[in-house]
Amino acid sequence: MTQHITTLRQLRDALPLPGARSRPLSLVPTMGALHEGHRSLVRKAREDGAQVLATVFVNPLQFGPGEDFDRYPRTLGSDLAALEEEGVEWAFFPEASEIVPKNPRIRITHPVAELYCGASRPGHFEGVLSIVSTFFHLVGPDRAYFGKKDRQQLFLIEQMVRELLFPLEIRPVETFREPDGLAMSSRNRYLTKEERRIAPELVRLMTEARDIYAPESQLDRLGWMNQLKYRLKERGFRPDYVALVEPRTFLPLDSEDPPESPAILLAAAWLGTTRLIDNIDIPARHV
Amino acid sequence: MTQHITTLRQLRDALPLPGARSRPLSLVPTMGALHEGHRSLVRKAREDGAQVLATVFVNPLQFGPGEDFDRYPRTLGSDLAALEEEGVEWAFFPEASEIVPKNPRIRITHPVAELYCGASRPGHFEGVLSIVSTFFHLVGPDRAYFGKKDRQQLFLIEQMVRELLFPLEIRPVETFREPDGLAMSSRNRYLTKEERRIAPELVRLMTEARDIYAPESQLDRLGWMNQLKYRLKERGFRPDYVALVEPRTFLPLDSEDPPESPAILLAAAWLGTTRLIDNIDIPARHV
Repeated sequence: MTQHITTLRQLRDALPLPGARSRPLSLVPTMGALHEGHRSLVRKAREDGAQVLATVFVNPLQFGPGEDFDRYPRTLGSDLAALEEEGVEWAFFPEASEIVPKNPRIRITHPVAELYCGASRPGHFEGVLSIVSTFFHLVGPDRAYFGKKDRQQLFLIEQMVRELLFPLEIRPVETFREPDGLAMSSRNRYLTKEERRIAPELVRLMTEARDIYAPESQLDRLGWMNQLKYRLKERGFRPDYVALVEPRTFLPLDSEDPPESPAILLAAAWLGTTRLIDNIDIPARHV
Repeated sequence: MTQHITTLRQLRDALPLPGARSRPLSLVPTMGALHEGHRSLVRKAREDGAQVLATVFVNPLQFGPGEDFDRYPRTLGSDLAALEEEGVEWAFFPEASEIVPKNPRIRITHPVAELYCGASRPGHFEGVLSIVSTFFHLVGPDRAYFGKKDRQQLFLIEQMVRELLFPLEIRPVETFREPDGLAMSSRNRYLTKEERRIAPELVRLMTEARDIYAPESQLDRLGWMNQLKYRLKERGFRPDYVALVEPRTFLPLDSEDPPESPAILLAAAWLGTTRLIDNIDIPARHV
């Protein structure tokens, strides 16, 4: 039975304190509208031998003005059923008024928070880091699980944990995909039938681009990225950005980085009113 | 016997986890060069019934280029003796390499971090918030003690704890003063004999100003602050800033704030090569 928790007092009463835990406590933070991707995070946490607390909280801090906070899907009933099915011990779905300041002034940031998705969504990652650190403080988990789908988010959370020495371990989980390759996302339900048909082209074109990636210079990289953008447009996307980032710093690869450097390919593109993101790894080439 | 701890491993082994604590665990963070002010923090923590962990760490992140990081007094031997005398359970004096990132990129900030001392010392409060949150994560204290001498620092730490829901309580402690009124500070030892004679004039002039404070308008407040600066210069100080701040927001009082509003008077002033700070409360007037 999943225990439902909505207040901080219930949370304090329910959770075993560090030092009184028979098994590790794992946190799986979600914004609800749960799909197989979220379930795969919970399954991984359970396979790793932990008790699991999942949060369901649409964090207002990570939405900008004019973004989809109001229309973001809220499906608490089926979310709780899914967590029950997955054997989650605690589902925490607090009121915003109890965990988000009325007038937030403290900001946690990082230069990479301004890039890529952060360039299109100012303040987004700061909102993510605030709520994630808040959950870390409230729950005190031994481990926390995040999907690689939100790769820039994962990087920033890992950096925050490393630099501020949060006493927990971040465990990344592979992107969960539909049979046709589309990365699962709660926002996929915004897609029309026609858009849904086109959507898997994002990762397909990225993969195709990866397979021919063999730059000899930074100029080649730029040309290659432009070609990918061009192909996305051909298919009906409006690309927001395409980036090749250095995996450890998450900064754009530049002419200082040798052609054979490993990379992460990031892309964001609009289909109608829906913004899709994806990323794939490009291993170092042995030259 | 105070247990001496220098590594994170020793720290993990030594500290009782939450849930296995017979008494609350209190943190007293210091940069060493301990004086009666620090001792008063420890005494308060002990009076409040806690076990005490004191840190002795000169945090490089909170010093700017050209500041006094290199000459900041380091007196570990006598610091440890003082902590022993005060009955501190654990003294934690880590190596910087173990708790400060080589290349820090995560920043915790707040609009007030840019004002007053933050205007003269860019990045100072961000460095403070980083190391304080790091210690909070490492130690997991139930309470942490900070002196009201560093009033802006205290405000920012309180805000960080409140907004990010750190599971601990901040307990402020009154400024500890020399018999002549000078606020105790590790930097007082930089003063020449002549400067030391003049130094208590800072709080004396601030108190004198408070006693005649009866503004009818914002213009009166500005005139009053200028007069205080003028008097400080007369006595041989080079004022850095004088500010009247609203206690809850820590923003400068302005024409929106009624004349009878409570305030905190902050001042920073140089004597030779030493920068002194102090602050006093100005209660609301009943009109």
